[in-house]
Amino acid sequence: MKTVSDIGEHALIERIANRLHQDAAPGGPGDDAAVLPPTEGPLVFTTDVLVENVDFDFAYCSGADVGWKAIAANASDVAAMGGAPRWAVAAVCMRHDTAVALIDDLLDGMVAASGRWGIGLVGGDVSSAPALSVAVSMIGVSGGRGPVLRSGATPGDRICVTGSLGGAAAGLAVLRGGLERDGVVGRLAARHLRPVARVEEGHAVGEIGPTAMIDISDGLAVDLGHIVDSSGVGCAVELDRIPVDPDLHELKSKLGADAPDPIETAVLGGEDFELLFTIAEERTGQARDALERAGSEMTDIGAIIEGERTIGERSLEEWRKLGWEHLRAR
Amino acid sequence: MKTVSDIGEHALIERIANRLHQDAAPGGPGDDAAVLPPTEGPLVFTTDVLVENVDFDFAYCSGADVGWKAIAANASDVAAMGGAPRWAVAAVCMRHDTAVALIDDLLDGMVAASGRWGIGLVGGDVSSAPALSVAVSMIGVSGGRGPVLRSGATPGDRICVTGSLGGAAAGLAVLRGGLERDGVVGRLAARHLRPVARVEEGHAVGEIGPTAMIDISDGLAVDLGHIVDSSGVGCAVELDRIPVDPDLHELKSKLGADAPDPIETAVLGGEDFELLFTIAEERTGQARDALERAGSEMTDIGAIIEGERTIGERSLEEWRKLGWEHLRAR
Repeated sequence: MKTVSDIGEHALIERIANRLHQDAAPGGPGDDAAVLPPTEGPLVFTTDVLVENVDFDFAYCSGADVGWKAIAANASDVAAMGGAPRWAVAAVCMRHDTAVALIDDLLDGMVAASGRWGIGLVGGDVSSAPALSVAVSMIGVSGGRGPVLRSGATPGDRICVTGSLGGAAAGLAVLRGGLERDGVVGRLAARHLRPVARVEEGHAVGEIGPTAMIDISDGLAVDLGHIVDSSGVGCAVELDRIPVDPDLHELKSKLGADAPDPIETAVLGGEDFELLFTIAEERTGQARDALERAGSEMTDIGAIIEGERTIGERSLEEWRKLGWEHLRAR
Repeated sequence: MKTVSDIGEHALIERIANRLHQDAAPGGPGDDAAVLPPTEGPLVFTTDVLVENVDFDFAYCSGADVGWKAIAANASDVAAMGGAPRWAVAAVCMRHDTAVALIDDLLDGMVAASGRWGIGLVGGDVSSAPALSVAVSMIGVSGGRGPVLRSGATPGDRICVTGSLGGAAAGLAVLRGGLERDGVVGRLAARHLRPVARVEEGHAVGEIGPTAMIDISDGLAVDLGHIVDSSGVGCAVELDRIPVDPDLHELKSKLGADAPDPIETAVLGGEDFELLFTIAEERTGQARDALERAGSEMTDIGAIIEGERTIGERSLEEWRKLGWEHLRAR
């Protein structure tokens, strides 16, 4: 097995530069900085780092899975602002004995995800470290109505979510359990390993004028908490309206008591990267239509109110504590 | 000692968000992504990662030194394009037992360096890892003549450098040697710990129209190699024209045989972050005047030629090998 130490930093950087987006005219990869063309309107700028054995585990992830997720997680943050992701740089730290093949695989995943969302991977840096990590930073271009913040939710708004929830968290559970990856298990595993940033959806919703938006990376309870905290409002989510990933019920039938609880997983599970937004009630129809054109379903799960913050019978705070207990029990 | 585990991720992120640039209207820190105002002209985009025990050592660096350098190294890359650094995001990885005070100190250094060059530190991410690391990504705005690449050097051009060389490498040597940090030792240590990005100088030279430019981060021999490789030209640098940091001679007088060789250190030492550029001979006077107004001296050290690549009697390749041997001997 050839390691990164065997080929040396110079050869490694060349190998990476050859995979970068070559059209970032006129500088392109290999100069002190990438050169980006001028853009109209505000930009959005974000960073997200994934660390081995903390954010991913090579026991059940490939290098390409990690590379894909590093790009997808950043693209999701841009999508949650209603923006279009455009350019990314990546700082990759690796052990001396990291296989060159693993780095190639990581790059494959980054290039595939970048291609999926039209992102130019224009530069990077490498260093050695005791654990592999990938820090991606991404620039996006704001939509025509400007960036959608977390802070504009207003009492009377409806709370809506794209797609379904809980699949990625259940996927992590089946991966950790080492189950055979076929049928429902395979689908859930893929939801964890190859998350989809809702870029088209974020753009579609952004054009309708939501009052607040966030991507669900830490779970519905936590991320809805960010919106209501930033906006200084309350919320009332109806538990039976939450779009639980149907595969969670199928997994429950298959595994019984060993399967995670569908509704708790949908409320607490992170990394689905679905979009959670608040919008004036009279615009929900337009948002639903726009999302349908973008290939996604919308579910109205409750209302922004003054005062208390609940999902079903529990407060957001009680849900968060339940989430921590689940984490501790792992 | 309070550790980052003691206070938890949420409190840590709040602590960091409070130190970020609050004027990145209208999103600001704490949203999914920072919102940046529109800019005219091309942007430049770069990333640079520093890892504990690889790129720095807490045996002789403070947290603030690391934070300062993480910003300065990126600003230097932007300066080497003739651009003005504007916004930065930072992904910080830390051990569970990292002291909160160390993170505060790291932020102090990042905030100080950002303030020095008018950079808005607008966002970030944190994760845990077996070693502390800081990956900063930076966006800069290109100067009026457009970005200065590495690839435009043309036979007949003069090769020029700002300031003096070798100080940062000698500083690293005295820090590793554990010498008392006063007088010349203190000045050299500061050159390693608190490098200055030549932002004003990069802008000043950029306006005169250099054919290529790079910052000296890996040493004159290596970084001149990048220019001649990218440009497909040769070079002839005169050894006795190289602006050796005068403190290297003073250190030699003080330590004798224990001191690093001044000329070799000036040719091979990295992280001075001085700018190396090539420019038509008839413009060297203008460049010198512009740099003087920016508070920096310029030295004309040789010529871009066709064919061979030399610094003094040695080829660039021989210098690089000498550098590797020095590294191995450490």
